Amino acid sequence: MPQYNPPIRDMQFLLYEMLDAVPTLRALPPHADVDADTLNAVLEEGGKFASQVAAPINLSGDAEGCTLDPVSHAVSTPKGFTQAYAQYVEGGWPSLSCDPACGGQGLPLVLNQCFYEMLNSANQAWTMYPGLSHAAYEALHAHGTPLQKATYLAKLTRGQWTGTMCLTEPQCGTDLGLLRSKAEPIVGGVLDGSYRISGEKIFISAGEHDLAENIVHLVLARLPDAPAGNKGISLFVVPKFLINPDGSLGERNGIYCGGLEHKMGIRASATCQMVLDGAVGTLVGAPHKGLAAMFVMMNAARLGVGNQSLGLTEVAYQNAVAYAKGRIQMRSLSGTKAPDQAADPIIVHPDVRKMLLTARAYAEGARAMLMFTTLQLDVLLSSDDDAEKREADDTVALLTPIIKAFITDNGWIATSSCMQVFGGHGYVHGSGMEQFVRDARINMIYEGTNTIQSLDLLGRKVLGDNGAKLKKFGKRIAAFVEEEGVSEAMQEFINPLADLGDKVTKLTTEIGMKAFGNADEVGAAAVDYLRVVGHLCFAYFWARMAKVALDKQNSGDPFYTAKLATARFYFAKLLPETAGLIRTARAGVAPLMEMDEALF
Amino acid sequence: MPQYNPPIRDMQFLLYEMLDAVPTLRALPPHADVDADTLNAVLEEGGKFASQVAAPINLSGDAEGCTLDPVSHAVSTPKGFTQAYAQYVEGGWPSLSCDPACGGQGLPLVLNQCFYEMLNSANQAWTMYPGLSHAAYEALHAHGTPLQKATYLAKLTRGQWTGTMCLTEPQCGTDLGLLRSKAEPIVGGVLDGSYRISGEKIFISAGEHDLAENIVHLVLARLPDAPAGNKGISLFVVPKFLINPDGSLGERNGIYCGGLEHKMGIRASATCQMVLDGAVGTLVGAPHKGLAAMFVMMNAARLGVGNQSLGLTEVAYQNAVAYAKGRIQMRSLSGTKAPDQAADPIIVHPDVRKMLLTARAYAEGARAMLMFTTLQLDVLLSSDDDAEKREADDTVALLTPIIKAFITDNGWIATSSCMQVFGGHGYVHGSGMEQFVRDARINMIYEGTNTIQSLDLLGRKVLGDNGAKLKKFGKRIAAFVEEEGVSEAMQEFINPLADLGDKVTKLTTEIGMKAFGNADEVGAAAVDYLRVVGHLCFAYFWARMAKVALDKQNSGDPFYTAKLATARFYFAKLLPETAGLIRTARAGVAPLMEMDEALF
Repeated sequence: MPQYNPPIRDMQFLLYEMLDAVPTLRALPPHADVDADTLNAVLEEGGKFASQVAAPINLSGDAEGCTLDPVSHAVSTPKGFTQAYAQYVEGGWPSLSCDPACGGQGLPLVLNQCFYEMLNSANQAWTMYPGLSHAAYEALHAHGTPLQKATYLAKLTRGQWTGTMCLTEPQCGTDLGLLRSKAEPIVGGVLDGSYRISGEKIFISAGEHDLAENIVHLVLARLPDAPAGNKGISLFVVPKFLINPDGSLGERNGIYCGGLEHKMGIRASATCQMVLDGAVGTLVGAPHKGLAAMFVMMNAARLGVGNQSLGLTEVAYQNAVAYAKGRIQMRSLSGTKAPDQAADPIIVHPDVRKMLLTARAYAEGARAMLMFTTLQLDVLLSSDDDAEKREADDTVALLTPIIKAFITDNGWIATSSCMQVFGGHGYVHGSGMEQFVRDARINMIYEGTNTIQSLDLLGRKVLGDNGAKLKKFGKRIAAFVEEEGVSEAMQEFINPLADLGDKVTKLTTEIGMKAFGNADEVGAAAVDYLRVVGHLCFAYFWARMAKVALDKQNSGDPFYTAKLATARFYFAKLLPETAGLIRTARAGVAPLMEMDEALF
Repeated sequence: MPQYNPPIRDMQFLLYEMLDAVPTLRALPPHADVDADTLNAVLEEGGKFASQVAAPINLSGDAEGCTLDPVSHAVSTPKGFTQAYAQYVEGGWPSLSCDPACGGQGLPLVLNQCFYEMLNSANQAWTMYPGLSHAAYEALHAHGTPLQKATYLAKLTRGQWTGTMCLTEPQCGTDLGLLRSKAEPIVGGVLDGSYRISGEKIFISAGEHDLAENIVHLVLARLPDAPAGNKGISLFVVPKFLINPDGSLGERNGIYCGGLEHKMGIRASATCQMVLDGAVGTLVGAPHKGLAAMFVMMNAARLGVGNQSLGLTEVAYQNAVAYAKGRIQMRSLSGTKAPDQAADPIIVHPDVRKMLLTARAYAEGARAMLMFTTLQLDVLLSSDDDAEKREADDTVALLTPIIKAFITDNGWIATSSCMQVFGGHGYVHGSGMEQFVRDARINMIYEGTNTIQSLDLLGRKVLGDNGAKLKKFGKRIAAFVEEEGVSEAMQEFINPLADLGDKVTKLTTEIGMKAFGNADEVGAAAVDYLRVVGHLCFAYFWARMAKVALDKQNSGDPFYTAKLATARFYFAKLLPETAGLIRTARAGVAPLMEMDEALF
């Protein structure tokens, strides 16, 4: 069974050494009292929950999956899942970064992000249940009426109830404009002002389960007078059990699970077909403005998906390292390394190291980028300085699609590499390695496919504002290059970073010009473009990490030696992928559209 | 459920238009009478068997898997597998390319290759059973004693019995020198001259099943006087049921299935832990020379594994195309394409086309390379001209590791892309798409991991003979470049091909020089190197296909239009990956070995 050791040292390195997060956080009114001791204590305890409670039920949960009782529509989660959830609630974990006004602990998002990374390493499927709840909490917190907030937020904060996002329907996933679910106003009676909602939703994570007494569904549907397309979609809150005026649970609502999907991975996460048959709900936010309200959740969720792949990359790496040190097979080509054994441990082989270091560099790069971005999110949510907020908003907007797509693509590459280290043993369920790969695969699809992320980045975030957000982030990189460019020791990192920055600028201009002539040029270049910009971000964060490590390399702490070696690996063996990607991005749309549809 | 339509037109294009295979085959004594009608008839009938018999039980076989009765040690294959196998035997398919002296039809290997591609598209897991049999047939045909041949070959040729390769043990996979199974000579009695073999084997495909009345295991084990390591391994044939002198089945032999692996994919293929408890076997080939005899099988098997990924790539492509034409979602960025529908079919989006064309270009490139190579194998096996045989031998030796690793890596990329076209629907079992991805993953591992293939290519096949085999193949490319370089229309294909050829020459020399100083430089560069050379091969075959298509583009047959468009896509969007790979190959060993093992 796979093992998991929370990477707390690396999180602390990023928090205190690279990001210098404590002063940043203390400058924000809600976090004025935060200190390293608090953060460290949460990381330690969170790591224990992840490694000791969530991790041990990951492999068994995958083998067992969820089951649906077709008569009662009840869904049972795998053995141990309800107990783990009860411990999670008991430990107060759901409330970590929730609003103190709703009973939350009000701790920074960057800390919650670290906690979720550990949960995702331990058990991505289990983590879907609390993760979706948190998204529902955020949507109601931002858009709910006072009554809705009073009804739901404390229960969600405590974890007593969980939440869902009900968007997708059989005929629409990416294109929510095609949505058909209907909401009819109820006039008169005790439910006056509510709506009866009918329709069919699919791919609803945590849509039904046995972890909590009630489930708070956030449902997209159309009002009777709704305009067609995206502009006629409203958001409703639809509880599994109606709530009595005293807050107690009332009647079972007309929303139930009609089927479970049998999936490639995250098999212990209940992916439900949900049937709404006149389910009673109330409107969240303004009529026809549901998509905008939902997008608040979706942006947070996209960062969360990147974090899922970070978690999987980390845990896959740890287990592959342990295997590579223990498995003996063949001799090193450069001479025997373990003469007392019948063969050398496979970690002596350069390509085994390459597979391991690929995962390591992708995990540590992703962690740096995610923690940086989540700290910006803390600034955005809690700063009282409008200019600082706008700056943070632009940064988060730009980096969100990159985090979602680049980190999940890397997670697929890295978990697969780590599985490869195990040879045939990695293909077998008991190793846990193939599960990491299967679980990682969904992250490239849900919350907007990675193609959609690339269009969001290139079309909306970059070309859509004439490159302003990208230029802002580029200035940040340029300032770092300027400052560190004087250091001899930093040249090996600064030069390729600066070079790639120049190339991104040229590439952006070139695609932007071509897009004037043909909008499909955006779609043709977007995926390659996102990957190039992803590497630019990683190069920036790796250079920043290298800078700290260089400063401390004589401290005697081997952590910095390893960090520097991993940085060098990243620049030598991963970043050069951009040479090919820039070429294919520049190759444009013609080679894609030349063939008539009928000839495919 | 996925559909499959055998790509017979493309196979015919390669056989008759690109390879001009009929004259080549007819020059070989055993194939002097072969003609296109025969080949076409086999392709048609083989395609029917694949699409109508093997394909319909692929998805259900994956869901059901195999089961082991722990008392009787019997393994049951999924529903429909035995019936399909019976039809396969009845149709005479096992004998297609077997020696007429053993009851075979003696048809060319290149035809068998096409048939197996179709079987692999239809059902890779089912195809493992006959596939392994054929490998056992080949080993006994090449190395068996007259008595062994008389005992086994006709039964294997008919498919009445199946075969296995029993190599791997828990402590050794790649490094067979660590093998522990023992063979003790039996002296006296009716079994005089036989051996009693004991040990534990793992990952034995088709090690036990209910398709055939007997199973012929080829087992590696050590004789009592065996030297340590690779040079002390002998090959034995160990039947599940001993064979009486009259050829009838005798006593149950002491080899049985102790467990089945639960795997990521090919779940309907029985992957058995085999226990040998004094099982009776006879020696195949010379004592201590078992590995050499087994490598004959392994080389053929490596081509077969490439063919498995070709099959999966093709079928994944076909199903993704059908989905992309039928699924409507969003409008084209360059303007509405299907005004009568609520949205456009997703095939209008450039990145969807990129995912589809990636699979198409990798499938058609792989088919060209595999059919070219298998035709060379026909020459090697059947020519009466020694120079021609040597030439073919060198070509096959060079291309085998590339086919195994490059095509299976591409298969992983391509099946994953095709799954991505389906969005969330591809992650669900019923689509069949995620199964293609899971099945494709094993091909990068078994029959020598892709890292091992890369070391075989760079270390043994290229540097090991001072580049002679590579130069020979390079001459073939240079001749084509020379000949077609005069054509204006061919410039777009010839120039990048010639350019990449030059770069490979330089890269090879550079790595070779560095390897003098440090043998680990080979291991550090090998995987990137193989992928670069793989693209050189694909560029060559795509240029050859483009040449035929250009010559016939005015024929009115849209097949050639599509071939040309796919060739252009390959050169514009896939081949440029080499720019990054050459950089990482050149980055050498230092970034991999800098970090101390303890710091991982």
